[in-house]
This record gives sequence, structure tokens and C-alpha cells, in this order.
Amino acid sequence: MTPPTTPRPVDADLLAAVTDLGAALRVLIENSVTTLAEAPELYRVTEQVRAAADALAVARRPLTQLPRLDDPAVFRRVYNPVSGIGSPLAPPLVIRRGHGGVFAEVSLGPAYEGPPGYVHGGMSSLLMDQLLGAAAMAAGRWGMTAHLELDYRGPLPLATPLLLRAEVAEEKGRKTVISGTVALAAAPERVLVDARGVFVAPRPEQSAAYFGSVTDASGRHAPPGNPTDATAVQPE
Amino acid sequence: MTPPTTPRPVDADLLAAVTDLGAALRVLIENSVTTLAEAPELYRVTEQVRAAADALAVARRPLTQLPRLDDPAVFRRVYNPVSGIGSPLAPPLVIRRGHGGVFAEVSLGPAYEGPPGYVHGGMSSLLMDQLLGAAAMAAGRWGMTAHLELDYRGPLPLATPLLLRAEVAEEKGRKTVISGTVALAAAPERVLVDARGVFVAPRPEQSAAYFGSVTDASGRHAPPGNPTDATAVQPE
Repeated sequence: MTPPTTPRPVDADLLAAVTDLGAALRVLIENSVTTLAEAPELYRVTEQVRAAADALAVARRPLTQLPRLDDPAVFRRVYNPVSGIGSPLAPPLVIRRGHGGVFAEVSLGPAYEGPPGYVHGGMSSLLMDQLLGAAAMAAGRWGMTAHLELDYRGPLPLATPLLLRAEVAEEKGRKTVISGTVALAAAPERVLVDARGVFVAPRPEQSAAYFGSVTDASGRHAPPGNPTDATAVQPE
Repeated sequence: MTPPTTPRPVDADLLAAVTDLGAALRVLIENSVTTLAEAPELYRVTEQVRAAADALAVARRPLTQLPRLDDPAVFRRVYNPVSGIGSPLAPPLVIRRGHGGVFAEVSLGPAYEGPPGYVHGGMSSLLMDQLLGAAAMAAGRWGMTAHLELDYRGPLPLATPLLLRAEVAEEKGRKTVISGTVALAAAPERVLVDARGVFVAPRPEQSAAYFGSVTDASGRHAPPGNPTDATAVQPE
């Protein structure tokens, strides 16, 4: 019997293939929002995209079953929409320990645009929610977002290296308070976005109600908790 | 001379093609995060994806040039990552006037997952940032996010119709305060996420610094403002 906190071996071949597909999809997405191709060419590409989608649809997991590569015991979630290596939506954010908590460097392309030339304000909140949660995890804690608050002091330019930082400010029972910032990597002390989050671990009966039917790919019950639902925090 | 607030005619053929491609890419993304295909099949799909990306890359707009279909004068931004009809990242959120402000109904699939079976907490903030901004626009105002704050009272299940609402709470010079909520469409009075945002229109000199080099597809200077940078609010 393997205790649930022992990491399962990774299927390295599958991980490499999922990583490649994620990267290729991100390029396709970026090209799709910047292309100057005309309608007939777009329709041809749409056919290629549909063929690719059909090829993937031959077998799909149900929503209650975690992806094969996911392992809550080592915080690995490959399709997390912020940090998942396989998620086409994710930049992806590679989160590391350091700066007294966790940090990530990322450059966001035109797919993430809000005002012309700048990152969508809501994208900053999406990324910071993930990073704040990762700071809690790095401190051995886990919770679901109960409160999230951001102050925007200046816009974040697209296609420019950004530095995101987060650290635990307070631990109180099931509650963790985390603060974080976004700055240009080239000017890390000039804060452009200030974030603060309160994450709360669900009570056992809440957890049972929320995650009672969640299984891993082998069919074993696999609710999030401590360890958790989020993607790996990389060693420093 | 056409005054800048007169909508430009839409290239309906191009819009239809962009709409189709966006929809196909969303299906591909959803299939990519749920597929049980093995590595060799994933590599074959990756090749198809790369071919599609290459076909789109033959001509691309620079970051300072708005997409051909965008028209700030009628709030149309086709690649907005929340509401853009052509954005593969966007659900997309279709925002309408009503409920004393604006609202949207949306169901979010597994690509938007945070905790197993539920919408990523940061996704709620991303969507609400857009909706709060749209409420300001629907009231004839525009601004960039200065403050965003959310209280999460319960998780949002995936693949379930959600109702998002937002309305202007206060107008004060360049500043607009907007409040909003998320609930299940089937239980609209039980608020699961409470949001509040402060949006501020940049001063003319800030706007010139931020958007001085932005042009539309014809090369005409096209900074956001009143009218604005965001996607259309549909009539009720």
C-alpha cells in the first residue's frame, strides 16, 4: 500500500507529449489573435483545428476524474489554467520558491490584452489568485479563495518580462492571508499591482460535499487538501 | 470626414470566419485538457496544430495595431480574452444590458477549472473585471481597473449556467465604482461571488503616454476612451 502522500511515478512520455501540445496550442492561439489572413484561409485553418479536436475526442475523461498526470500529493495539476504546463490558456506561470515566499517571471502576449498594448486587468487578478494560493501551499497550507483584492497602480505592458511575488502574511486556523505584487522584471521595486488574498481550507464536511466524487485516473478518491489541488511550486 | 464615433462598416465575411475559428479553437482547447489519447496520438495532433499555426503566421499585425475587426467607436474588440468572439481564451462572455446594468450568462468548461469540478477563483475575478468595466461603458463611462475586490461565498461548479450581473454604484469625475455578483442561473438570488471595482479614466497626458502609438488597421490613431477599448455590450 502506497501512502497517499508519496508521489506517484510520472509517465514521462505522456508528460512530454502534453507539454509539447500545450506549447503548440499557445502559439496557435497567439497567431489566431494577430493573424492578417483573409476569410478563406481562416476557414481552411478552422478545418485543420476541427480535425485536431476530433482526434483528441476519441476518449475523454469525465469531469469528476482528474487528468492522468495530476498528482495532488506533489501539487501537480497539468491543466491548471494559470500554471498548468498542458493548459493552452496558461502562459504558463512557473512558480518558484524565493523572495521570502514564491515568485514567477512571465511575459504575456497579445492573447492576454485588455487596453491596447497592456495586460487585461482581470488577467492580473487571475494570475495573482494562483500565485497567492501557491504561496499558501509553499507554507504547507491550502485553501480556496475567500477574498481577493487588488490595487492597480500602473498598467502592465504586453510582451514584457513581469515579476510576480507572493508571501504569507498571516496564518489563523483554516485561514491564510497572503499578499503579493506585480512589477516589471526590469524595475522590481516599483509595484504596479498590489494583491491581497484570504484563502480558507474547507471544513471536512464542506470538503466532502464539494469533492466527494473526485477520483484520480485510477479511480481512487482524490480530493484536494493538504497536499492540494494546485500545480507544483518548483524548488528555488 | 467620418466623425470617430460613427461605427465603421463590419467586414461580415471576415467576422464570420473569425467567429468560426474562435469556436473551433475553444473545442480544441477543451478536448486537449480532457483527452485520454496516448503520447503518439498527442504528437500527431501537435503536428496538426503547428501546421495550423504556421498557416496563420504568414502575416501578422504588430502589437500597436488594432485587429481589423475592432472598432472602439462601437466597443467592438474581437480578441478580448473574456468577451472577444474570436478569442480562444474567452468563454466568450456575451454581455447584455438589463438587470439595472449589464449581465451575462455563461457556462465554464474544464479548461477553466481550479479546484476539481469548480471554476478557478481567479477566473471569477477575470470575468467580473470585464463585466464591471462593461457596466461602466453601458453607463457611457470608461476607465481602467484601479481597484478590484471579490468575496467568494461558495464555489462555482463547472459546466453549469452562471448568471453574472453588474451595475454602476457611483460616478465621481474620472472614477466609476461598479458592483457585481455571480450566482447560478438556476438560483439567481443566492450570491456566490460578490465583486466591486473602481475604474478610472486616464488623464489626457496619461492616455497619450499609454496609447500614443495605437492605431486601427488603417493606420489611424485609435486610443481607447469614450467610446472605449472593450467589447460590445449587446442591446437588451
